[in-house]
Formats: sequence, structure tokens, C-alpha cells
Amino acid sequence: MSHTDDQGRTERHNARMARKKEIMDARIAAADEHRGVFIVNAGNGKGKSSSGLGMVMRALGHDMQVGVVQFIKGAMETGEERFLRRFPEQVQFHAMGEGYTWNTQDRERDVARATEAWDKAREMLQDPAIGLVLLDELNIALKYKYLDVDQVLDDILARPLHQHVIVTGRGVPDAVVEAADTVTDMTLVKHAFAAGIAAQPGVEW
Amino acid sequence: MSHTDDQGRTERHNARMARKKEIMDARIAAADEHRGVFIVNAGNGKGKSSSGLGMVMRALGHDMQVGVVQFIKGAMETGEERFLRRFPEQVQFHAMGEGYTWNTQDRERDVARATEAWDKAREMLQDPAIGLVLLDELNIALKYKYLDVDQVLDDILARPLHQHVIVTGRGVPDAVVEAADTVTDMTLVKHAFAAGIAAQPGVEW
Repeated sequence: MSHTDDQGRTERHNARMARKKEIMDARIAAADEHRGVFIVNAGNGKGKSSSGLGMVMRALGHDMQVGVVQFIKGAMETGEERFLRRFPEQVQFHAMGEGYTWNTQDRERDVARATEAWDKAREMLQDPAIGLVLLDELNIALKYKYLDVDQVLDDILARPLHQHVIVTGRGVPDAVVEAADTVTDMTLVKHAFAAGIAAQPGVEW
Repeated sequence: MSHTDDQGRTERHNARMARKKEIMDARIAAADEHRGVFIVNAGNGKGKSSSGLGMVMRALGHDMQVGVVQFIKGAMETGEERFLRRFPEQVQFHAMGEGYTWNTQDRERDVARATEAWDKAREMLQDPAIGLVLLDELNIALKYKYLDVDQVLDDILARPLHQHVIVTGRGVPDAVVEAADTVTDMTLVKHAFAAGIAAQPGVEW
């Protein structure tokens, strides 16, 4: 590649970046509403819960108070539970504690545990001191109708103006997608599990 | 709904859960290879970097050493940077420090900074004491050819056997998808930004 080619490439790149900056500046100027967002991480791929935990980390870095309720999970101690329990003054952490439903095989017990977990979630959703609430695997509790979706959405939408809430899990009901501000479908492209690699600490829990 | 209907529903549910447990147990028994996984978070939706940060949190909870290199990001201090710098004995954190390319508009400078950041990444990828390495927004540096994808993949694939590595960002090259163990496309369903809600601390940074 000649010097002239290099220069042309650099100029085209810089012009493209300048246009991109104009577009981004305009979009940022237009997006000026500051209020808590309702985020949903759905789909069959990896990254739903971990993305919620990453936002928890960011919120902690901004000295915000955080609430975490883990529906379904809790039969084994996770890395996130071990880590977040180190910050009792900044994090309220509640794990439902009965493991996945395919381990318990007891619907009534699952409903009772999910209802108890939702009571904890509602307390957080009514507390203006909490800046971000992560409702991990809530979608699974809704999919199996352990909880009433209308009641859940009423409680989420009635939260304090500046509180963010993140809902994760497969099988998200349409009503939750409609009510949310930001929805991502974590789409599986490929997964190490299918290639015979075990679920491992630091990655899956 | 009659008592008999309730009972039927509970029985069907329990039978379904029992079948699911059989399937999950078989899959877990088959996936018995323990080695570091190469994870890619791609796509246009929210959750790529935050999912990487969530895995960092899990790894910290398991007392693992962690390395983080943020390509592109670094012009402003993020929540994750503020938080992770509190754990200098467990986390090596390096932010490239020049902001997004559409702010710098200087290709040669971007290449130099990306190369410098990759040198940091390579050090981490050669250190068996580090259990998990997050290469945040690396895909953008590859998309703009600030770094050579073959060199990058050689360095990633030559890492210690039990080290996990996570690569995030839009515009992932095909070669990276092919080389990875787990790939998720964070697919945008909807985003608060498009509805006029600003990017906010704790959520976007």
C-alpha cells in the first residue's frame, strides 16, 4: 500500500468518524429524559443474568444502593452471592433458595417461594433510596405462572421515578416486553455446553 | 377451577419437571470437560459489556484473579472502573483512555492506543494466575482494523488452559465467532434511548 493510499484511507476514516460524531451528538441531545429505565434481558443465549450483575457493578461504582432478588436460583451458592454479600450496606441480596424447579418438582412449594421472593422485591420497588433493582430469573416465575404478571407489572411501574429495574430470564411474557423501556434478546449463536464443556465457576455462576 | 383441575395441573407440572430434570442431568453428565472458555458478546442490543462485567463479578466471588482491558472506552470514568479499582490485588484494570473513535477522529492515534492496549491484554493472556480476562469492546478495534485479527486470535488461543476470556462489542469478525466456544448475539428488541431517555449512570456506564 502506497503512502497516498494510506493517506486516502485515513482521510476517509476521519470524515466517516466526523459524520458519526454529528449523528451521535444529535441523538444524545434528543435523548434528554432522565428517569429510571425498565430493562428486560430475555432469550436463550448466555448473558441475561450476567448483564444484570454488570449493571449492579456499575451502580455500585456510582455509590448507588442496589437490591437483588434471585428467583429460582439459590440452591447452591453463586459467585455473585458470595461477592455481593460483602457489601451489606450497599446491597440488599435475597435468593429464593429452592433451586431450579426441575429439581424441586413441587409446584405449590415453588409458588409459595416465588410469592415470598416477590414480597421482598416489592419492598425494594417501594424504596426510593434504592437506585437499581435486579429481579433475576423473574421471567421463569412468570412463565410457569408462579406469580401474576399483572400484579408484577403494576408493582414495577409504580416504583420511584429514578429507580432502574432489570428483569431477566427465558420465556418473557409479551406484556413484560410491552411495558419495558429496553429489551434485549440474548440470542444463542453457539454455547460451549453443547460442545461438551462443563458449566464453570466465574462464567455460569 | 375445581380441585380436580388443580390436582391435574400440579401432576402434569410435576411430570414435566421430572422429565426436564432427566434431560438436564444427562446433559450435565455429558458436558464434563473443564477448561477455560472463549466467550463472545456481539450484536447491537444492550448487554455486551455489562454481561462481561457480571462474569467478572462472579469470578471475584470465587476468589479468582481478573484482568480487564477496555478498548475504545476510557474518555470518561465509568462505574465499573470506579468499582474495580477498589480491588487492586484481585483486578488488573486497563482502560485505553482515548474515548470513542468518533470523538478522536485520528486513525493513527487510535491504532497506537489499541496496540498499546493489546500489549496489556497479551500480558494477561500469558499469566496463568489470571482466571478470567475481559477484553471489552475489542470487536470495535478489530472492525476498524486497528488490530490484526489473526494475531489477536493467536494470542487468545495460546492462553493458559483454565483461563476464561470474554470479548465484547459490535461488528465481530467471522473469524472470532468461529474461534469462540460460546457466542451470544445481543439482539436489540427495543431501547430506551430511541424513546428519548438519556444514557444514565448505573445502566450505560
